[in-house]
Amino acid sequence: MEITASAPGKAILFGEHAVVYGKPAIAVAVDRKAYVTLKKREDKRVHVKINDLNLSGFLDLEKSEVKVENLNKKPEKKGILNYILSAVLKVQKGALQGMDIEIDLEIPIGAGLGSSAAITVATIAAVSKFNRMELSKDEIAEHAHNVELEVQGAASHIDTTLSTYGGMIYLSKNAEDIKPIKISGNLPLVVGYTEERGNTGELVESVKLKKETYPEAVNPILNAIESVTDDAVDALLEKDEKRIGELMNINHGLLDALGVNTGDLSRMAYTARRAGALGSKITGAGGGGSIIAYCPGKVEEVIKSIKKMDKAFNAALSVDGVKVKVKK
Amino acid sequence: MEITASAPGKAILFGEHAVVYGKPAIAVAVDRKAYVTLKKREDKRVHVKINDLNLSGFLDLEKSEVKVENLNKKPEKKGILNYILSAVLKVQKGALQGMDIEIDLEIPIGAGLGSSAAITVATIAAVSKFNRMELSKDEIAEHAHNVELEVQGAASHIDTTLSTYGGMIYLSKNAEDIKPIKISGNLPLVVGYTEERGNTGELVESVKLKKETYPEAVNPILNAIESVTDDAVDALLEKDEKRIGELMNINHGLLDALGVNTGDLSRMAYTARRAGALGSKITGAGGGGSIIAYCPGKVEEVIKSIKKMDKAFNAALSVDGVKVKVKK
Repeated sequence: MEITASAPGKAILFGEHAVVYGKPAIAVAVDRKAYVTLKKREDKRVHVKINDLNLSGFLDLEKSEVKVENLNKKPEKKGILNYILSAVLKVQKGALQGMDIEIDLEIPIGAGLGSSAAITVATIAAVSKFNRMELSKDEIAEHAHNVELEVQGAASHIDTTLSTYGGMIYLSKNAEDIKPIKISGNLPLVVGYTEERGNTGELVESVKLKKETYPEAVNPILNAIESVTDDAVDALLEKDEKRIGELMNINHGLLDALGVNTGDLSRMAYTARRAGALGSKITGAGGGGSIIAYCPGKVEEVIKSIKKMDKAFNAALSVDGVKVKVKK
Repeated sequence: MEITASAPGKAILFGEHAVVYGKPAIAVAVDRKAYVTLKKREDKRVHVKINDLNLSGFLDLEKSEVKVENLNKKPEKKGILNYILSAVLKVQKGALQGMDIEIDLEIPIGAGLGSSAAITVATIAAVSKFNRMELSKDEIAEHAHNVELEVQGAASHIDTTLSTYGGMIYLSKNAEDIKPIKISGNLPLVVGYTEERGNTGELVESVKLKKETYPEAVNPILNAIESVTDDAVDALLEKDEKRIGELMNINHGLLDALGVNTGDLSRMAYTARRAGALGSKITGAGGGGSIIAYCPGKVEEVIKSIKKMDKAFNAALSVDGVKVKVKK
């Protein structure tokens, strides 16, 4: 028996960083996924292999330890194995049955695209199925959020919600609730990314310091981001393409003013606009990572232009969330 | 007899665009100058030649007309001749004496660096001297401002004030007055520019439209620029280098949010920061033109880095304003 679970990554469309100060945000599941495939092993061990990362190891569930077999060139990426260990432990039930867990990624890791949430959600879905548990999506999302809390210390519900349910969401002021934003059709989004990586914790800290040092400048910036985000909900529902793009561009500049832009991100954002994107902005914490561009009728042109210097892919909205397939 | 007048260009350090809505601004005279050299002609005609632009022609003072002799590759630059005509007419007195006016520029034209004010101020100073008028600096500045009003339809006092008096100025809220900001020592500034040119009128109009369309986003942005500008006065007086740089970076992002940044300007701004500038930002209307970078101890490095793709020069504060030299 082979079980494969998949879960989409995400991109923040509006409101990153401001969300830390109780401002609203809009995020979208993108149809680039993490795939987790499980096969039974003859022994009682749990082996994990992440294809493309040249990273594998054994999970010791009793000691709650990861034993990495090999170290790829980016050892910081081995942190992803902690999410998998924690996820497996969440849905381990009864006598341990050995498993081979193989992971395939369509999302770059550490680029602000929710790769860890996608892997976590798909792992929980696959392992719970393997262990003959029937979890609801709500239960999967709850477990996944707890995994992120355990591994990261802090986590918003945005990533795990989107990897579980798909679609687009509005996180309201002070994170009081998460509402779906339901649009007809799709969003012509392109993600561009480089190898440059920001450290989310350090970036959040740098914005906090900026807010403390220049409150009279930074507080209006956060208010402007709030206004842009709330405006964008209407623009998205009304499919007002020009407005969606302009609001993204304003949000990009405000993120630049908060100090989380870089030369690489800026290059990709402006390359996208020159190639016909109606809007483009940093997505996620910045300091490296990714930009997202809104490209009605220009998806291929924008991808081609960004690819001259960086990497890019079409990031259509994923209506689907986590899915499980069983092959007998 | 040969008369040479020189006047410095300027760069806006803080507050461009917001100044249109009554916010304060800080600007600085930069020691890149326009030189206007006058010689007597045997006939009664007034000939003007702008070296480096391959642009020359006769001024018909009676008909108030410019007769261009040649058209360089950038015919839009011939507009500069209207400033010269208007300036000559302001200080024409008595019977017309023919003149050859030769202009040398250390400032790129149309790049937001006050080239037209510098040329206007130097022309007024040189021609008034030639006509044996003794104008005070206040009179030169007043004439120059009137020239800008005539030629452009609208003008702030910033450019003509700096080209006349030199130094650094703070234009207070609602342009109520202009105060000098007196600092000891110099400012290690670098200007970077490309051939890309923005149209100031169109850019001002685009910001106005943005303000009307997204008031809840744009008004806080203008307030943030005001706060940054007022903070910067203290930072400059205290020579708080880190703060000056950080405030410039915030101002840059806010200008990006207003939609006046471009891929080229952004590249230069981030190139400067990577090369060690403590801060960098668009200077002037944007949409092309120039960036200014604050580079204590890193002037040469920043110039070298920008020059890999674009043009750059050291733009030290010019304490001097307009100057006239007479060679018998």
